[in-house]
Amino acid sequence: MSRLHDDLIVFDGLIVSNFDRSVYEDMRKGGVTAANCTCCVWENFHDTMRNMARLRQDFVAHSDLITQVCKVQDIYDARDQGKTGMILGWQNTSGLEDRIEYLELFYRLGLRIVQLTYNTQNYVGSGCYESVDSGLSDFGRDVLAGMNSLGILCDLSHVGPKTSEDAILASTKRVAYSHCLPAGLKAHPRNKTDEQLRFIAGHDGFVGVTMFPPFLKNGTRSDVSDYVEAIEYVINIVGEDAVGIGTDFTQGYDASFFEWISRDKGTGRLLTDLGEIVNPAGMREIGDFPNLTAAMEKRGWPVGRIEKIMGENWVQLLKDVWVE
Amino acid sequence: MSRLHDDLIVFDGLIVSNFDRSVYEDMRKGGVTAANCTCCVWENFHDTMRNMARLRQDFVAHSDLITQVCKVQDIYDARDQGKTGMILGWQNTSGLEDRIEYLELFYRLGLRIVQLTYNTQNYVGSGCYESVDSGLSDFGRDVLAGMNSLGILCDLSHVGPKTSEDAILASTKRVAYSHCLPAGLKAHPRNKTDEQLRFIAGHDGFVGVTMFPPFLKNGTRSDVSDYVEAIEYVINIVGEDAVGIGTDFTQGYDASFFEWISRDKGTGRLLTDLGEIVNPAGMREIGDFPNLTAAMEKRGWPVGRIEKIMGENWVQLLKDVWVE
Repeated sequence: MSRLHDDLIVFDGLIVSNFDRSVYEDMRKGGVTAANCTCCVWENFHDTMRNMARLRQDFVAHSDLITQVCKVQDIYDARDQGKTGMILGWQNTSGLEDRIEYLELFYRLGLRIVQLTYNTQNYVGSGCYESVDSGLSDFGRDVLAGMNSLGILCDLSHVGPKTSEDAILASTKRVAYSHCLPAGLKAHPRNKTDEQLRFIAGHDGFVGVTMFPPFLKNGTRSDVSDYVEAIEYVINIVGEDAVGIGTDFTQGYDASFFEWISRDKGTGRLLTDLGEIVNPAGMREIGDFPNLTAAMEKRGWPVGRIEKIMGENWVQLLKDVWVE
Repeated sequence: MSRLHDDLIVFDGLIVSNFDRSVYEDMRKGGVTAANCTCCVWENFHDTMRNMARLRQDFVAHSDLITQVCKVQDIYDARDQGKTGMILGWQNTSGLEDRIEYLELFYRLGLRIVQLTYNTQNYVGSGCYESVDSGLSDFGRDVLAGMNSLGILCDLSHVGPKTSEDAILASTKRVAYSHCLPAGLKAHPRNKTDEQLRFIAGHDGFVGVTMFPPFLKNGTRSDVSDYVEAIEYVINIVGEDAVGIGTDFTQGYDASFFEWISRDKGTGRLLTDLGEIVNPAGMREIGDFPNLTAAMEKRGWPVGRIEKIMGENWVQLLKDVWVE
């Protein structure tokens, strides 16, 4: 294990795993300081609340391993206590249903990162698999204004290109692609073009880089060095201060989960065929995180860059966006 | 208007009105310092959240008149600021559905008073209109333990006699009938026998007295003196330190509301025929509250008793129950 890794703030901008004690133990094994943990993908208000209630129970039941992060200091506290800080995050605004006033309720319970849409159109805007992206709706503008006001980070990873552009321009706070890959390495509806990467960075935005195999150049034949290559590609476009990690670990899920996320609203038409999900060799599981630091060292990155990419940039972003 | 009234802490243990600005203005006119305001009667989780979200919006939109009360100090602050403090309260546990872990979510949003059942049996226990009261369920014991732990006042007004007895014995905190009348003045399934009143008082409990006309001896022909008589009847059983006000004002509602509350779960069988709802003369509306103080003075109560009954006893109860 890398000695450097043990000294880092390690921040994962997207984990959508089947959260249970084995995942929490693996987070500790991987030395993950904090992560954006998905608790809404297609769920409605009710089921999203169920997910959040269960996670909040877990914060108590597994408090030897994990702790909820609601403010930046909680990340430092997690590090000092040897726990993994979990941020409640959404990959969709389906949890709001048609009620903007719910946003404040969820915020109060710890919601701190929200992706505006997931793959297809909702009340807020459009998704990356939608045939036509009509942009941010009026309701979406109200939701984004509410997020800006409360201090909830706006995530655009699965959002359509027009809606993303609208949101980048409308937001009064920094926004992020929390987990994406460059289309320059592989053309894919989920990947972002150099132009898109430059646009978000040009508006003080942020790019978390994922390693989800269907979007990687070498797919399921990738190893951790392919992931570091993709990160470096993004750094070369947006600069090393605006890039972080966003693995998209789906640990503990079986085929039914991938079926559910691949269909519109979970049960509708098939939007994409993700194929087999095998994470890059060396980064198969969350516990393998030290191998990512080692691969960065092997690639010759200076320590300062590794520190930024592995976590410090994410922490700075949250300092800028969250209201504390 | 009574000069004494202006100096009192005026606490209403139950208002289930159709909350809007006109009600808030009337609360101010009545000099109400704080009130337990119902936001769940038959509603499920979703609709209860909607109600609470709307009220929390109102706390912002009408902040010149009202303010949310989550701790005892908020009551004193409301008094000092010339506002009415509103406590979010439930008359049923239907808002939890089958998930005990939701209790903590609602607590976080300000829920501070919860009646275990409303008229009929639910997951927690039985109601006062149920043919057979099987007592507090195992789930109900878990809910009550959660309420005790969080510091949510347990209300038993519409709860069945066996479930009430079980809850009084099981609770580690003081419990209340927030709004009831003595069966000694009128036999009615909603009214409490002398024995029931003695039992709750003997276990350090509390009795808020209502003036809901169907349960008053003189029904819709009552005036404010009938209400004071009923309060005095209860004081003579449980002592003047364990009694308060719980009007059950239903201001702003029409017949469809009374139909809804009279049917099991809102739409099922008719449980009772409430008849015409006309509040006692002199206490027709919330703004008439000064007349209640005047009627107590007219009956010759000393100032110290009036202060206790009108609000100080309620505040002491909440000091004892709430965790701050």
